[in-house]
Amino acid sequence: MRLLLLSTSTVHGTNYLDYAQAHVRAFLGAGVKRVLFVPFALHDRAAYAAKARERFERLGYGLDSLHEAAEQGRAAALAAIHGAEAVFTGGGNTFRLLEALQRLELLAPLRARAQAGMPYMGASAGSNLACPTLMTTNDMPIVQPQSFEALGLVPFQINPHYLDPEPGSKHMGETREQRIREYHEMNERTVVGLREGGILQRDGDRLKLIGQSGARVFRRGVEPVEFRPGDDLSALLQPASC
Amino acid sequence: MRLLLLSTSTVHGTNYLDYAQAHVRAFLGAGVKRVLFVPFALHDRAAYAAKARERFERLGYGLDSLHEAAEQGRAAALAAIHGAEAVFTGGGNTFRLLEALQRLELLAPLRARAQAGMPYMGASAGSNLACPTLMTTNDMPIVQPQSFEALGLVPFQINPHYLDPEPGSKHMGETREQRIREYHEMNERTVVGLREGGILQRDGDRLKLIGQSGARVFRRGVEPVEFRPGDDLSALLQPASC
Repeated sequence: MRLLLLSTSTVHGTNYLDYAQAHVRAFLGAGVKRVLFVPFALHDRAAYAAKARERFERLGYGLDSLHEAAEQGRAAALAAIHGAEAVFTGGGNTFRLLEALQRLELLAPLRARAQAGMPYMGASAGSNLACPTLMTTNDMPIVQPQSFEALGLVPFQINPHYLDPEPGSKHMGETREQRIREYHEMNERTVVGLREGGILQRDGDRLKLIGQSGARVFRRGVEPVEFRPGDDLSALLQPASC
Repeated sequence: MRLLLLSTSTVHGTNYLDYAQAHVRAFLGAGVKRVLFVPFALHDRAAYAAKARERFERLGYGLDSLHEAAEQGRAAALAAIHGAEAVFTGGGNTFRLLEALQRLELLAPLRARAQAGMPYMGASAGSNLACPTLMTTNDMPIVQPQSFEALGLVPFQINPHYLDPEPGSKHMGETREQRIREYHEMNERTVVGLREGGILQRDGDRLKLIGQSGARVFRRGVEPVEFRPGDDLSALLQPASC
């Protein structure tokens, strides 16, 4: 499997995907000419696809959007997935993304292609989608998906946009670390708190943290551990470690 | 219906329920001697019940916890609900709270008692529970409830711990206002962004904002409106307005 999972599509003070463009080019390589975009995390799919298309064209790739195929029916959507050279799932609301893919019955075909080696890229909600479930999203549950189960392309959970506790905050809502601790009160899986600018790259049985930010890895029952860009995280791909 | 819905159980710099104690006393009055506590939003129910019991005893009320009755079986849980003089649902994780009440089939009996006039108090997740759905929670979806439908004791949604956008933030995750706008991309219902310290009190067809903080009310398709403690919000109880 080949995955490129971004914590965020945009880092503060830069434009859409700018910070990640060298990693995207290196990941897709010269073999890929067109990318299939999954826009379902945002409400205005056409506008989202136009924005992504403009950005990928500047990177040298053509872009088709899955919502356009889906509007022509299920057969066209399946054909788009089966013919895709690579997939990029954009960020937005993870519940909306997962609900749409489950309702359109496109989750299993996407999973099968990624498991067979088609490069899969995600940003934010699109990275959460690669996890076993959406249970570590930060998003508001604005729609109810049939199930919380997602693609399961890695055996651990990602918390995108991971935020360190704010010193001196007077807000009484839970910190991100407290939320992940609550997740571990109910679930076993390891959670990678991926700070904005951090990227996970999977190549078969290798997993590496790249990009410009670190990650905080939470295993159930033990103290969290910090990782830096360049660190090898392949151990997280062993089911026993999750 | 008589409801007292707190944005938070604790305001920064004070102890559990301190800021709200005069409102709790005025709401329960001299007629209520014992309160039935719903502790399912936290993992350690026994510790949570002990904390709530200590606090309510200092306020002059006895406290029974629904988890103790539920451990003796469904008949005992139903008897506790049917015999309750008042209910208080504590804060924590809204998904965990709703999942437990649905699994134990206690949501409908609680709803029936509240609709028949039994005083219902909630804090944070417990206030969200009084809404038609949990769709405006800030919590992480650490467990999957059977459904997102909740008690529906008011026709609008509450977003507890409502936070104003932070000026100068470099974080790229959505602000609370953006999340509520996303909710309205998919749903019709009005959302009350209830800041910490804010309390909604319902008495029949009257709804009032009390406590020490304002609320920001989001109606689909129009600009949000600010309300101050003391303001009358009864119009929100008209289904047409939601």
